[in-house]
Amino acid sequence: MTERRESIFDRDLGRTAANHAPLTPLSFLDWAAGVYPAKAAVIHGDTVFTYAAFAERCRRLAGALAARGVGPGDTVAVFAPNTPALLEAHYGIPMAGGVLNAINTRLDAATVAFILEHGEARVLIVDRELAPVARDALGMTDHRPFVVCVDDPLAEGGVLIGDADYEAFLAGGDPGFAGVPPGDEWQAIALNYTSGTTGNPKGVVYHHRGAYLNALGNALTFGLNAASVYLWTLPMFHCNGWTYTWGVTAVGGTHVCLRKVDPGLIFPAIRDRAVTHMCGAPIVLTMLIHAPRDQRVAFPQTVEVATGGAAPPSAVIEAMERMGFRVTHLYGLTETYGPATVCAWQPDWDGLGLEDRARRMARQGVAYPTLGGLMVADAESMVPVPADGATIGELMIHGNTVMKGYLKNPTATAEALRGGWFHTGDLAVVHPDGYVEVKDRSKDIIISGGENISSLEVEEALYRHPQVMEAAVVARPDATWGETPCAFVTLKPGADAVSADAIRAWCRDSLAHFKCPRHVVFGELPKTSTGKIQKFVLRERAAALPE
Amino acid sequence: MTERRESIFDRDLGRTAANHAPLTPLSFLDWAAGVYPAKAAVIHGDTVFTYAAFAERCRRLAGALAARGVGPGDTVAVFAPNTPALLEAHYGIPMAGGVLNAINTRLDAATVAFILEHGEARVLIVDRELAPVARDALGMTDHRPFVVCVDDPLAEGGVLIGDADYEAFLAGGDPGFAGVPPGDEWQAIALNYTSGTTGNPKGVVYHHRGAYLNALGNALTFGLNAASVYLWTLPMFHCNGWTYTWGVTAVGGTHVCLRKVDPGLIFPAIRDRAVTHMCGAPIVLTMLIHAPRDQRVAFPQTVEVATGGAAPPSAVIEAMERMGFRVTHLYGLTETYGPATVCAWQPDWDGLGLEDRARRMARQGVAYPTLGGLMVADAESMVPVPADGATIGELMIHGNTVMKGYLKNPTATAEALRGGWFHTGDLAVVHPDGYVEVKDRSKDIIISGGENISSLEVEEALYRHPQVMEAAVVARPDATWGETPCAFVTLKPGADAVSADAIRAWCRDSLAHFKCPRHVVFGELPKTSTGKIQKFVLRERAAALPE
Repeated sequence: MTERRESIFDRDLGRTAANHAPLTPLSFLDWAAGVYPAKAAVIHGDTVFTYAAFAERCRRLAGALAARGVGPGDTVAVFAPNTPALLEAHYGIPMAGGVLNAINTRLDAATVAFILEHGEARVLIVDRELAPVARDALGMTDHRPFVVCVDDPLAEGGVLIGDADYEAFLAGGDPGFAGVPPGDEWQAIALNYTSGTTGNPKGVVYHHRGAYLNALGNALTFGLNAASVYLWTLPMFHCNGWTYTWGVTAVGGTHVCLRKVDPGLIFPAIRDRAVTHMCGAPIVLTMLIHAPRDQRVAFPQTVEVATGGAAPPSAVIEAMERMGFRVTHLYGLTETYGPATVCAWQPDWDGLGLEDRARRMARQGVAYPTLGGLMVADAESMVPVPADGATIGELMIHGNTVMKGYLKNPTATAEALRGGWFHTGDLAVVHPDGYVEVKDRSKDIIISGGENISSLEVEEALYRHPQVMEAAVVARPDATWGETPCAFVTLKPGADAVSADAIRAWCRDSLAHFKCPRHVVFGELPKTSTGKIQKFVLRERAAALPE
Repeated sequence: MTERRESIFDRDLGRTAANHAPLTPLSFLDWAAGVYPAKAAVIHGDTVFTYAAFAERCRRLAGALAARGVGPGDTVAVFAPNTPALLEAHYGIPMAGGVLNAINTRLDAATVAFILEHGEARVLIVDRELAPVARDALGMTDHRPFVVCVDDPLAEGGVLIGDADYEAFLAGGDPGFAGVPPGDEWQAIALNYTSGTTGNPKGVVYHHRGAYLNALGNALTFGLNAASVYLWTLPMFHCNGWTYTWGVTAVGGTHVCLRKVDPGLIFPAIRDRAVTHMCGAPIVLTMLIHAPRDQRVAFPQTVEVATGGAAPPSAVIEAMERMGFRVTHLYGLTETYGPATVCAWQPDWDGLGLEDRARRMARQGVAYPTLGGLMVADAESMVPVPADGATIGELMIHGNTVMKGYLKNPTATAEALRGGWFHTGDLAVVHPDGYVEVKDRSKDIIISGGENISSLEVEEALYRHPQVMEAAVVARPDATWGETPCAFVTLKPGADAVSADAIRAWCRDSLAHFKCPRHVVFGELPKTSTGKIQKFVLRERAAALPE
């Protein structure tokens, strides 16, 4: 903060209703509905909602929620796959002043019960396919939200539960509902629970200002415009779909819903709906690459695909490019509204070969233009590391697209935001060109014989093996070395058998000897609900392995 | 503002340095210099500054200004054409906490003196070519700014005046100057004087928040990205180059400076620098179209050109398209940071013929996505007009990209921002598709025999005449009718002579009889310093015409 002298610019030039309004992504919907009323806003199977219809449905939802008593600071939970109802919730709930809590659809009943209770949801909107889990969750808590059930015609099975049918609820809502715009852009708009690999999940709170800015950051970074058609391969419950739920609307683009990440649905949607953009964890890309040949229909356009959560290996980049995709690597966390960095393309990469390109693209890159800033520094001294591509520090982020904090957890909030920076917990280096590369989660570093081994580095070597589809490396306790790397590997469908020895030999070709996995275990990898590999499960398995 | 209940989201979730920072376009330069240090940021003749060099020069300027005592709330005036110095001023001055006052280069010494005094400039940076006017201006006032003179090698003539040479001033500035970031995003960043057709010009004050948001709005609306090369055909002193001074940097694009709007410089720059985007008043487009054949060099790319200030006539659109440009129509005022609306392209216009397209493109269109909103309403009752394309009301605008107000003029500020809206003074209709079309400035309506005649409508008919290059229509007092339309017409270079009768006959083909100009005067049109036709001069001439 700057000390200000009294100046001529401080006189009679205050905020008024004419020149100041809280930033909110709700303005994007008003704008898109005004400019492109007849354009397809939301496509779901054969159903198409124009922007006029989409805006009306959101307004009805807001009106119906307000009539049920939902107002500023009230939580409305939604437990649904990527359907129109969940997208409408991104507008209808904050339009009533409420806070959207999109719940991970892969959670079990006990965790859902915890979230409903902790978030104090007044209303729960649930898709029929997830109603059985929701019913079990509600049976585990005394908390009693008003339950609205979505009878999506594309749902498979499930049951109808609760107090109201979603379409009837909307029909009863006032299409002329004026809305309760945020009085302050710092007002909460969304509540997203972390996957919580240890202990209970934490409730990350977003505000209107951050949602607005990250949505614009996405639109700029990913090159969205009114001609964009965005396929929802990324779960909307994941950081509100990395804020693309709002970003696509900000340019008047088209949302294509998708209940299931299934190549048999994705390829035809890309072709039939002329999809231009999509996002997803690397597993989504892997799934597309290894889809059965008859599912992989061709399409004429180039599809931009942004991926995050782990670096895309060169083999994945190459295979995706061959199918007509262009891969961009993003990085972020729930605490940063999803993407906070992008591996921005540099003009002089155009002429590089695949391996060189892939090595550069594997880096998490540089800050979004809408972020405040990032640094890699010693977590205690806060001294930045040199940009030498080697010295490891903690990646820290600050700016308007960092969460308000954790709900009802001031200790964790203060810890995460200490020293004016959000501490990501990711260990990274800074390359001489300023690009950041995450080497590991703090807890994923393997210390063997006093040497630090990056599990990511070993995983990258494994991913380059032609038969390997997925790989994860964790520390295994070792009497001699303290820890040794243990690799868990999934081979590609139809791949020839590979021996553990062959994998070890492969690693020795590109890694220092001490970094090579001592143990190699083949089989499927345990995943969290957001598709992240559950390393804590693997650590237990590794520890239990016979020597 | 909304009444808030105390909720769980109001507890322990306040702003901290980690999750809140004032919005400022200064962050764009930090970002671009970090991501694209080696990329061309600014090109001026044969000089190329990379983003690293550009950022260092801005930082040195800030340090040198701070060393001269410039701090928050202090005005620094710049009187220069579109040169690196003026672009650097957009960053270096606010980086010191100061307020940039870019002065219109076409102003006379008396007006410059008024502006220096009224804006209380502590420092004046002046280009050598404009130094004679500045010297005269300084001779007319007791106000004594510190004067820094830019000895631009591309300047033609002029003199060196003042207390310091610009390059020496920069050389003395600290390249490691930390900057004085705004403590509040509402802090003033720029001061822009209106052209002031009557009385003294008014000082329009911008803040960091609005500059940041309109720059992003421009980047989104005009499709800017890191590959963009922006040619400075629009004066940077005009609403800070419509905020493109910051918007181009926000995407890491390249600025190509241009001292003079001269087709002999513009066409080679487009070809040699691979320009992708440019802006300008319609006169710039007209100038390109009518450039001597040997100046009109061909270029392979399509250049996006945004124009505003008046609707581009169909003949202009057609001629520009034939040369390789694509025209977008923007609208705004000094009070709205330049562009506030865009005639956004609709998918179903693709198949239209030229005339139908041109009719749609002539409209001012819809709000920028970053604007709060606009309406056309009765200025007294504030009741919006129906969207019938016929009922005229005043165009009003609100949002974060409306000025703070007029400097030292609370009365004019309150008048302009009354009722929660900025009153543009432009009379407009709303078409059934929601697009706004400006029919006239309030004072440009001609009332003849009790009927309202839009001077714009008559001008459009005149512009369609194949021999007409420019046209302006004003009211001429008339004993019988009250007023009658009087047309002033400039014919194209080398056009055959056209009679007043022929022009009148042409108008009768497309206009109601009472709308046709009774008088037609041929010759050059008087213009304001920003290239706007000076209708008040024409009104005097019209009144003085013999019957």
